[in-house]
Amino acid sequence: MEVTRTNFNELLDDISNAIKQASFIAFDAEFTGLEDTKQGHALPFDTPEERYTKLRKGSLDFLVLQFGLCTFKYDNKKKRHIAQPFNFYVFPKPYSRQAPDRRFMCQSSSIDFLVSQGFDFNKVFCEGIPYLTPTQENTLKDTIEQKHLLHAQFSSPAFTSPHGQDIGPNKGPIAIPDDQKSFINGIVDQISIFMEKSEEESLNLPVCNGFQRKLIYQTVRNKFSAVHLEAKKGEKKDRYICVTKISGEEEMKMREGAKQAAERAEIDDAVGFSKVVRMLSQSGKLLVGHNMLLDVMHTINQFHFPLPEEYEDFKSMTKCIFPKLVDTKLMAQTHPFKDHIPVSVLGDLHKTLSFKPFELAEVEFPKGYTNYNDNDKYHEAGYDAFVTGLCFASMKNFLGSFQKPPKDFVSPSSPLVEPFMNKLFLMRNFEVPYMNLNGADLTANRDHVFHMTFPKDWKSNDISNLFSAHGNVQIFWLDDTTALVALYKKENSKSAYDDLQVQKSNFTIQKYKDFLSSSNGEKNKNSHNKSTVRKRSHNETDIDVPSKKKKTLNVAAQPFVCKQPDVISEGDDSSNTSNTSTTDVTMTDSTHNKLIDVKEDVKEADKLFEETAAW
Amino acid sequence: MEVTRTNFNELLDDISNAIKQASFIAFDAEFTGLEDTKQGHALPFDTPEERYTKLRKGSLDFLVLQFGLCTFKYDNKKKRHIAQPFNFYVFPKPYSRQAPDRRFMCQSSSIDFLVSQGFDFNKVFCEGIPYLTPTQENTLKDTIEQKHLLHAQFSSPAFTSPHGQDIGPNKGPIAIPDDQKSFINGIVDQISIFMEKSEEESLNLPVCNGFQRKLIYQTVRNKFSAVHLEAKKGEKKDRYICVTKISGEEEMKMREGAKQAAERAEIDDAVGFSKVVRMLSQSGKLLVGHNMLLDVMHTINQFHFPLPEEYEDFKSMTKCIFPKLVDTKLMAQTHPFKDHIPVSVLGDLHKTLSFKPFELAEVEFPKGYTNYNDNDKYHEAGYDAFVTGLCFASMKNFLGSFQKPPKDFVSPSSPLVEPFMNKLFLMRNFEVPYMNLNGADLTANRDHVFHMTFPKDWKSNDISNLFSAHGNVQIFWLDDTTALVALYKKENSKSAYDDLQVQKSNFTIQKYKDFLSSSNGEKNKNSHNKSTVRKRSHNETDIDVPSKKKKTLNVAAQPFVCKQPDVISEGDDSSNTSNTSTTDVTMTDSTHNKLIDVKEDVKEADKLFEETAAW
Repeated sequence: MEVTRTNFNELLDDISNAIKQASFIAFDAEFTGLEDTKQGHALPFDTPEERYTKLRKGSLDFLVLQFGLCTFKYDNKKKRHIAQPFNFYVFPKPYSRQAPDRRFMCQSSSIDFLVSQGFDFNKVFCEGIPYLTPTQENTLKDTIEQKHLLHAQFSSPAFTSPHGQDIGPNKGPIAIPDDQKSFINGIVDQISIFMEKSEEESLNLPVCNGFQRKLIYQTVRNKFSAVHLEAKKGEKKDRYICVTKISGEEEMKMREGAKQAAERAEIDDAVGFSKVVRMLSQSGKLLVGHNMLLDVMHTINQFHFPLPEEYEDFKSMTKCIFPKLVDTKLMAQTHPFKDHIPVSVLGDLHKTLSFKPFELAEVEFPKGYTNYNDNDKYHEAGYDAFVTGLCFASMKNFLGSFQKPPKDFVSPSSPLVEPFMNKLFLMRNFEVPYMNLNGADLTANRDHVFHMTFPKDWKSNDISNLFSAHGNVQIFWLDDTTALVALYKKENSKSAYDDLQVQKSNFTIQKYKDFLSSSNGEKNKNSHNKSTVRKRSHNETDIDVPSKKKKTLNVAAQPFVCKQPDVISEGDDSSNTSNTSTTDVTMTDSTHNKLIDVKEDVKEADKLFEETAAW
Repeated sequence: MEVTRTNFNELLDDISNAIKQASFIAFDAEFTGLEDTKQGHALPFDTPEERYTKLRKGSLDFLVLQFGLCTFKYDNKKKRHIAQPFNFYVFPKPYSRQAPDRRFMCQSSSIDFLVSQGFDFNKVFCEGIPYLTPTQENTLKDTIEQKHLLHAQFSSPAFTSPHGQDIGPNKGPIAIPDDQKSFINGIVDQISIFMEKSEEESLNLPVCNGFQRKLIYQTVRNKFSAVHLEAKKGEKKDRYICVTKISGEEEMKMREGAKQAAERAEIDDAVGFSKVVRMLSQSGKLLVGHNMLLDVMHTINQFHFPLPEEYEDFKSMTKCIFPKLVDTKLMAQTHPFKDHIPVSVLGDLHKTLSFKPFELAEVEFPKGYTNYNDNDKYHEAGYDAFVTGLCFASMKNFLGSFQKPPKDFVSPSSPLVEPFMNKLFLMRNFEVPYMNLNGADLTANRDHVFHMTFPKDWKSNDISNLFSAHGNVQIFWLDDTTALVALYKKENSKSAYDDLQVQKSNFTIQKYKDFLSSSNGEKNKNSHNKSTVRKRSHNETDIDVPSKKKKTLNVAAQPFVCKQPDVISEGDDSSNTSNTSTTDVTMTDSTHNKLIDVKEDVKEADKLFEETAAW
């Protein structure tokens, strides 16, 4: 169901009911861009806190333009889900001069990608649903009430301030400049004639600018008692004043009351799409996303509250607003799914789940809703939300096959889903695969990671040869002359470092943590050392299922081990650069922004590289 | 003539000829936004240097999306101009991974305004002409040549790097990860069968991601000698590899040569619209704009060079790139025009120039060009450029009426136009009406300006009463509790300040220059005190016509006095807030961003306030 400002209000009840009846809800958002590289790239050894800080600084100036929501309700009799997908176009059109006039960032490649996928920018800019955060809403309401109060104090019969504008304290009347006097006199004459001789009910004054309208208001207020003025807007946004004859003070009060009510209703309209996000939050329902960290951050920041600087505050805020989140990309890369799912990009995941050992959940759509079963519309937020929900439904049911006896259907509130709750996938992260909203994060062990600089003509082989005495390495090119190098055998970290410290001639080597504190010291001072990271290594993540539940679950061993990049060591004729299916690091050999290239195969990269359906 | 990437190359000769034959050229640009308020508002007492610094910081992140160009050639026989208007859609689509992926800012109100005027965002994003600055162009060319060089050194028959991507140093082959082995083996089998059994010339491999394509390239290079690989892009930007059988090394070289030529041509295409701007610059022709400062700054910054931090460098750079600029808004507000032109907004100016004492210049359009005489298309850049040129043509001819004997036609290179040359209108500036590219700027006298803070309930009257002993004042509301206050009688500056310093209780008063250095000291340290401002007051601007020329011109007295806001002093029942037709300052009574509201009646305000044709 496509939702724009045109049909938003009439659909609001349907949306509310769909949310209320849902057993879970999937969502997805489309942005004007992904990453402002000035703010620092996401790096494969970021702690969750560092990643949050980078995304908060570098991604939130982009805007959500489309928000997809798909509610899923299980029909016990039919053994299938009823899905109601909504595809919202959203845009922060400033509805009045007092409304926030948002500045936002766009990324050319993202815009280009969206256009190539058929995204309709004219529609979103024309018909996008507006929105306000609670704070913006309250400020506007206060301003309106203050204006109405002032009006009650100072109004004279003919004076009414313009509709939907000029809200705010009245700092006194304006002197009429000489060059406006003849214009204003002309208007007064026109109104005099209208009042005395015309049989029409109302008179439209000529289009004029805001200053002239202001002068008209204050002049007419003093000269006429039986007229009502109202600012109106023509088709091309040209503004003019409509003069209406009124019978007396009663009618004036009535008209003024109606106008004030209309102004309040206008703010209510301006809250717009935020109402949906508030419903989502208040429902407390399970929300499912695919690679959802950025979606969650944008949704909170754009419709609820500015994201806090402190990472721990973000975690608390998110838990408060969306208490139950599940990320299907993290599920797909985790036992028991990862062994059967080679690529966790949404489109591939969808395909994989259509075959054994999986069984795609059956879904039907109520009348009036797009039948997404028959439509491949990747990158339409509503469709992506639907596919995400479908994947979740299918994966959770798969968990039932390990039960004794096996179960065809697993409820989204089943303890089987619990291990995946509130863990958001961290893209391009080799050490810590997810952000844990439920408690402390895993530790990023970076003792085996080094930052190196070297001559421009060095290739992967030169680096791996350097380290050959200490085992194989992973190389992450930062640019032509710098790279992060990670040892496969972590126990060799100290010996390798000591060894290369001695050797170094035309290259430099630094422990990664020393590099971070020296180069980003000031910049990232809020992103390090402050979190209360649980001190354990990632290899222990298999105990993440609460032990009490383990007994009852009958899940096969290691229910929550995340897929990690395997280091590949190859023979003589190939370098030791390693790779994985989820991050093709050694592809990063363009001259500029090498690290950006690492993003292939993930949602972001997809947009950046103009690939189809690559997340 | 609408110009997009589709017809740009075929029209380039026409554009070039039109520029070559023009007697003058008018231009206009449409932006994604105007002002990032975080960077500080333009204030009515800014020096040109301060204004430049604010615009450079706060406006250049927005993007030019449409560029209008209208060449004017005078036909002596017909006594009329031949105009060739071009309306260019421009967008920095990254043509390859190596091309810059520009981040840019949008302002919701500007987008909303453009959409309401029928601006087609889908068209500009889909079909916008790309562009590169000279530096970007050279970097790309270097990268390509380096890649071709590497290819010549290391190529083996079957290896060709993908078309238009993966440029850059080759840092060595990649090990094939375990989970990709079966995929790659499948591809190898497919190619083997194709080579041995198929009668087809070429084979399209399945769509796959960039990492997989990289693996395919290096694998096929080692296994097959008689195939040529080429990356191709499907309709939805999905990329795949096309395998072609080749006869031998000769054909391989030929194909590779053709591909390298195509890559060079691709960069040439990517230079795109910058070619037009370079032609404009190289022509040395007179360029006319209306309120053109932002247009000039954006044009240089987006298509030529990043604007320099130093104001004097900007002036030199602009003179170098565009040696002759005339601003019709400045003309309209200057003697001898200002007495006949009440409002200098483009649409109003156009109307005013249609009546006595003016005579609208006659214009005709060659076949194939939109006849803008019959089309009112304000805010289409091509149309605005046309109207600007038309206004210029009409105004310069008006100067001929002062000649003895009067002349109907004045050449754009006439000394009569000289006084307006290279002076760019400064919007919302009460002291210095223009930026002078030809030399030192006028001095902003700000001794009579004060910065005040006071309780929220103060109105204009409270402030003017405070100053009543020292004459009338102009008030510029900054927000509810702060304002700039300017004395009409500048000679009273000291006494007023001393007097109020003593009086102050619930308010504070500060000299404007002290306020600037205390509040913005650090922020604006580059914008003050550095310019070599000519020390003379604005009242002397009437001597701006070179005295030698004065004799020959026979222009009526004061040929170059800019229209200044007149201070209005009114009687008892109105406050002393003053106003002018060009800046309706006391309208600025909204709660937030009061100073923004000052912009009514100028191009920017128009967009901000959703007014029609208000510049």
